Amino acid sequence: MKPQGFIAGRNPVVEAIKSNRTIDKILILKGIHHGVINEIKKLANEKNIIVQYVPKSKLDSIVENCNHQGVIAYIAAHNYYSVDDILQYAKEKQEDPFIIILDEIEDPHNLGAIMRTVECAGAHGVIIPKRRSVGLTATVAKASSGAMEYVKVAKVTNIVDTIGYLKDQGIWVYGADMDGENYYYDTKLDGPLAVVIGSEGKGMKRLVKESCDFIVKIPMKGKVTSLNASVAAGIFIYEIRRQRG
Amino acid sequence: MKPQGFIAGRNPVVEAIKSNRTIDKILILKGIHHGVINEIKKLANEKNIIVQYVPKSKLDSIVENCNHQGVIAYIAAHNYYSVDDILQYAKEKQEDPFIIILDEIEDPHNLGAIMRTVECAGAHGVIIPKRRSVGLTATVAKASSGAMEYVKVAKVTNIVDTIGYLKDQGIWVYGADMDGENYYYDTKLDGPLAVVIGSEGKGMKRLVKESCDFIVKIPMKGKVTSLNASVAAGIFIYEIRRQRG
Repeated sequence: MKPQGFIAGRNPVVEAIKSNRTIDKILILKGIHHGVINEIKKLANEKNIIVQYVPKSKLDSIVENCNHQGVIAYIAAHNYYSVDDILQYAKEKQEDPFIIILDEIEDPHNLGAIMRTVECAGAHGVIIPKRRSVGLTATVAKASSGAMEYVKVAKVTNIVDTIGYLKDQGIWVYGADMDGENYYYDTKLDGPLAVVIGSEGKGMKRLVKESCDFIVKIPMKGKVTSLNASVAAGIFIYEIRRQRG
Repeated sequence: MKPQGFIAGRNPVVEAIKSNRTIDKILILKGIHHGVINEIKKLANEKNIIVQYVPKSKLDSIVENCNHQGVIAYIAAHNYYSVDDILQYAKEKQEDPFIIILDEIEDPHNLGAIMRTVECAGAHGVIIPKRRSVGLTATVAKASSGAMEYVKVAKVTNIVDTIGYLKDQGIWVYGADMDGENYYYDTKLDGPLAVVIGSEGKGMKRLVKESCDFIVKIPMKGKVTSLNASVAAGIFIYEIRRQRG
């Protein structure tokens, strides 16, 4: 049996269909009336995707703890890309590489929100470690508001090795950490670059931190000493966007 | 019976004790061993706060759907402030007012993450509407990583009236919306100001938007048309921090 996943929620399903992702079938809540659901039916019809009408209990049993809003799409497992695919994509767009490395993000809502930011900011891809990182689940897809369908994600065995490889390609690697010497906004962030965001509780691992070219910090003016990981990522990613113009 | 609330989670409880919030008692999971739990016991002892050791089922029953990490504090209901309290606080710090207005944020994780950003960036307070907004619940406190204890929050009946009042006090009001004429980073954001962040799905209401002095936008380079509300708030709040130096 081939690997499968689910996408839950109205807008995520619309985005999945539009992005030409391989969808095996779509389950819709029996008797539901909603503009976006009608759009899904229309799109599914155009693309010859099977639609089944099912009771709420069926939808609830497929995606636990996830608000499906009356629609779930069965999809082929997420296609992962290689680091070279991401570099090639930047080259095709004739842009300096702009890559986000996530060192063990554990919360699917954070991962989804970061994917959404990556897509909105026009970055080229995300690199995550194979182990200890949350996978690309239905919750991540929902939190990404459909962006997961468009963002190239590479899973790598060893983040430190990958940073070394990126540096060999002429890419500068910036780590975000409160130990940083300079503020992120006093740092030139407009060339070919990758930004490393650490895990929610512990930040970057020591070896990862040591392999970065620069460590930059976000000013902290209060008593709490760190931001939510997806907020910190958003601040860095959009500062890069700002400097790139 | 006096109004009560709960704070769940290790760091949020530590922050609540340190901030001298009125705590009625603390419940700790029987038999738990953890460095932060030991710190909580020590702090509670110093401040004469009652500690009770209870089974996991008891903790689970108090805060549903919230990861309590083995500790819950019963607290007096959150103290709300007035808009004038927030303005007075800025005055005491001899700073231009820096206020965040949240127009109907519905997700407690987003509200918590925004409170955390507000505290870290050194903004003076948050204004939320009395109706249709998520309240300051245990989930918000947990997501704020303890910041909720330090941030002044004012609940107002009518956001449009409050914007008018702030404008009368010489405060410029900026709304964040994709219809904005200028990018947020091309906009001068260093005087006395308030920033309005709209709700997750619908953005700012029309009347709220019309009452702002300026509408600014975040560049969107991809196919998804909006950021997570707490990420968008973080980008704005830290651009203001950057411009204030």
